[in-house]
Amino acid sequence: MNMMQTDNKPTILITNDDGYFASGIRHLIQMMRPIGRVVVVSSEQPMSGMGHAITIKTPLRLKNVVKESDYEEYICNGTPVDCVKLGEQVVLKGKPDILVSGINHGSNASVNVIYSGTMAAVIEGCIDGIPSVGFSLDDYSSQADFSHLEPYVQAVAKMVLREGLPSGICLNVNLPKKRTEGIRGMRVCRQAHARWVESFDSRYDPRGAEYHWLMGEFENDDKADDTDVWALENNYVSLVPVQYDLTAYKHLALFREWSTNKN
Amino acid sequence: MNMMQTDNKPTILITNDDGYFASGIRHLIQMMRPIGRVVVVSSEQPMSGMGHAITIKTPLRLKNVVKESDYEEYICNGTPVDCVKLGEQVVLKGKPDILVSGINHGSNASVNVIYSGTMAAVIEGCIDGIPSVGFSLDDYSSQADFSHLEPYVQAVAKMVLREGLPSGICLNVNLPKKRTEGIRGMRVCRQAHARWVESFDSRYDPRGAEYHWLMGEFENDDKADDTDVWALENNYVSLVPVQYDLTAYKHLALFREWSTNKN
Repeated sequence: MNMMQTDNKPTILITNDDGYFASGIRHLIQMMRPIGRVVVVSSEQPMSGMGHAITIKTPLRLKNVVKESDYEEYICNGTPVDCVKLGEQVVLKGKPDILVSGINHGSNASVNVIYSGTMAAVIEGCIDGIPSVGFSLDDYSSQADFSHLEPYVQAVAKMVLREGLPSGICLNVNLPKKRTEGIRGMRVCRQAHARWVESFDSRYDPRGAEYHWLMGEFENDDKADDTDVWALENNYVSLVPVQYDLTAYKHLALFREWSTNKN
Repeated sequence: MNMMQTDNKPTILITNDDGYFASGIRHLIQMMRPIGRVVVVSSEQPMSGMGHAITIKTPLRLKNVVKESDYEEYICNGTPVDCVKLGEQVVLKGKPDILVSGINHGSNASVNVIYSGTMAAVIEGCIDGIPSVGFSLDDYSSQADFSHLEPYVQAVAKMVLREGLPSGICLNVNLPKKRTEGIRGMRVCRQAHARWVESFDSRYDPRGAEYHWLMGEFENDDKADDTDVWALENNYVSLVPVQYDLTAYKHLALFREWSTNKN
């Protein structure tokens, strides 16, 4: 199915939401190249906060910028989800063996999974039946240190290549910020029940018209030790299995009762 | 908490992703006005396919266009999720009693919930603890007929105002296209395991550069009779309880086993 696969090397599709020049994707590319053939499709512009946006009102442009035998790189004017679609349909004309997205500059633990372009790309891959993993570093700095992450990122990618992933499931892997002591290990976690408490910084432009900058504080009241936020705070890598079936199965019976009473 | 609430009328925040001039939101406003005070915050431009995008690189502009005692309307340059944040933080300075989003021109059944701006607004409301419901009509036409929907839309909104919703749960309500026979009733459903199979319509511009239009076919192999797609096809209103905790709880044990073997 995959045009590039002529020997046993797996094909690895890489994308992100910070744009092709971000330090995080550069590190991810270097970590993946020893494992397989690497095809990068990423955005020219940073796409943080784009969620699962797709581009339908304007056409997409795709440009090849690197072409070596085991390493190709493309940039486009689309969102992270567009990158996955272009990677599959236009570049590979088939499915990669794995999709990896990131390494995001900033945690995608807890409810950040909903806003994240990095994880939207992963969920898109998952919908398409590709084993897909998102990696995010709990450090928003564009100068963040990624040097301590390689063993964990490579181990997860190799594990997924070897074992596959259950249907409808992808992985949200968050990595702790560099500290003097090394990472303590990996924990399989659930998404913490935290949220962003928004506010707006409202100002007036030079013409007297009001405008608003979105601001927010991350607020976590979920103090249990099985969450992704806890893992990061305690210097563990967190791994959350993520599903895109949003049905709240536990509550189906309740609503069946309501609608029966009503109709 | 809510400035507008001076008597027993509930405050209803309305948004959508088709823009403020869309027929769907106009109908939703008319259906909600008999139930409570209506505050509309919607986008100047259509925002279909924006998913859970938020606006962080440009400032937001908000304009009041209608101000009556029980009915206010605002338009902004943001996404549906921005509309919810602006509605809460800048307009209401507190939480509405209910958030309703739509009526979307086109079904948000199955995996469409992931791409939909209409449902992103609903999920945003849910994260913020507001009882939130999305309404979508299984008809993409901008001239779609909404005349058969009022009893169902009003019944769901009233039920949610009366009963509330469980924490972390919102509703994805899809309504069948108008047919000669009336709607058969409401079904509580799960999200169908279907997907969009993408392709690109690739062309060359007058300067010889290639560009790509995103295309897709909806493919449903999930033929069970408890899905939202089945309900719409069989002329039922579908109601899916939706959660934004994406943790695949059923698979935690599997990954714990993997990571134990590895570390």
